[in-house]
Amino acid sequence: MARFKLTIEYDGTPFCGWQRQADRMSVQQALEEAIARFSGETVTTQAAGRTDAGVHALGQVAHFDLGKDWDPFRIREALNYHLKPDPVVIIACETVGTDFEARFSATARHYEYRILNRRAPAAIERNQVWHVPVPLDAARMHEAAQLILGQHDFSTFRSAECQANSPIRTLDAFDVTGDDEVVSITASARSFLHHQVRSMVGSLKLVGEGKWSPADFRAALDAADRRRCGPMAPASGLYLTGVDYPGGSGPIA
Amino acid sequence: MARFKLTIEYDGTPFCGWQRQADRMSVQQALEEAIARFSGETVTTQAAGRTDAGVHALGQVAHFDLGKDWDPFRIREALNYHLKPDPVVIIACETVGTDFEARFSATARHYEYRILNRRAPAAIERNQVWHVPVPLDAARMHEAAQLILGQHDFSTFRSAECQANSPIRTLDAFDVTGDDEVVSITASARSFLHHQVRSMVGSLKLVGEGKWSPADFRAALDAADRRRCGPMAPASGLYLTGVDYPGGSGPIA
Repeated sequence: MARFKLTIEYDGTPFCGWQRQADRMSVQQALEEAIARFSGETVTTQAAGRTDAGVHALGQVAHFDLGKDWDPFRIREALNYHLKPDPVVIIACETVGTDFEARFSATARHYEYRILNRRAPAAIERNQVWHVPVPLDAARMHEAAQLILGQHDFSTFRSAECQANSPIRTLDAFDVTGDDEVVSITASARSFLHHQVRSMVGSLKLVGEGKWSPADFRAALDAADRRRCGPMAPASGLYLTGVDYPGGSGPIA
Repeated sequence: MARFKLTIEYDGTPFCGWQRQADRMSVQQALEEAIARFSGETVTTQAAGRTDAGVHALGQVAHFDLGKDWDPFRIREALNYHLKPDPVVIIACETVGTDFEARFSATARHYEYRILNRRAPAAIERNQVWHVPVPLDAARMHEAAQLILGQHDFSTFRSAECQANSPIRTLDAFDVTGDDEVVSITASARSFLHHQVRSMVGSLKLVGEGKWSPADFRAALDAADRRRCGPMAPASGLYLTGVDYPGGSGPIA
């Protein structure tokens, strides 16, 4: 048996998310069907991040096992052939030890959230950003973001359906930068709660447009109460950019 | 009567190009129908660049006239409302004098061509780049590009259907930059021949992969012979980024 680690890019728009569902197409199903087509083996893949419907990935990581010891380069080429026309591509394939688990070995996950901040909607990046027409103060959003770094109870920024045992997480980095018309928000942590990034971004947007102060943002965290969360940011602007494992990696882009 | 100048972004993928055609949807038709819906007036728009099917724009410029003197801000908002769900948005709308003509007043047109240069195809930017899996030497492509700056007979890089009176054009800037996986090519001139940018890029790609030397590229130009052109680059990677008029502007992005 051989275990393979995949680094995957996908456009989440047409999918119900990473995870298999009975009635809608998932990235997992597209990938597992492509694996079956080239190898003849039926496998279950495990991913580092179970992205939601419409969420994109530049550096999702998954692993799977095959009975035969394939050349990883050939696997990448075969998968990219069989994944067409789905918007899923394999950036890299490596052989790893059987102690490697895409989900449980991960030491950090990196996300980026992209806001198109201009009056006119998006034409070219329609499903790839959140269009916010009111001017956002990125410096103030960054100031607020710094107030929630570290270990906290993130219940305010957690979906009601979150299945994690604990709402305690450690936010290692949370940065906001803005240029002419794009506000980019990056977040890194060992792991995130369900909807955590989109919930934090939705609340930060209130800071950016002046409805909340940075102190209000911190107070929302401290309340540990979902009702204090701002309206959640849409899936279209969110990207899983990379996953770290012992030995390194970091965001893809 | 009032004349309005529009700056327009669009995803060219679903369109037959800028120009109206009897049987397929064009950007021009989408725009003129949106103008009719808010103003009740039937107009003909004129654009600076008649982009081909699949070619995108970040800063196309067009003008049109209305009998009534509308507030340009209201026009932009009304058009962005009525253009949905087509991937066409109005970035800016200004009132201009009736001597302004989007096509004939232009003093420079700026294009960018984006190549995704990695083994794996594009997932997220599938219709927005040219995927070239063989490694390209961007520095060598840039070196070659510099050899054709200035005024020349560009017959080699001109479509057989080009309707321009003369194949003589003046290429003011032609630059190639490369990073990890994207090669970006920018070109500026007062005007271009039909398919000129895609023809030049297709030939530069041969330089990038080592099939042509920079001198071969220059020799192809000097031959002034369409048969000496490399395979033309696809429409998906091309963007009209901006148009200059007396008084300024430049590329949008």
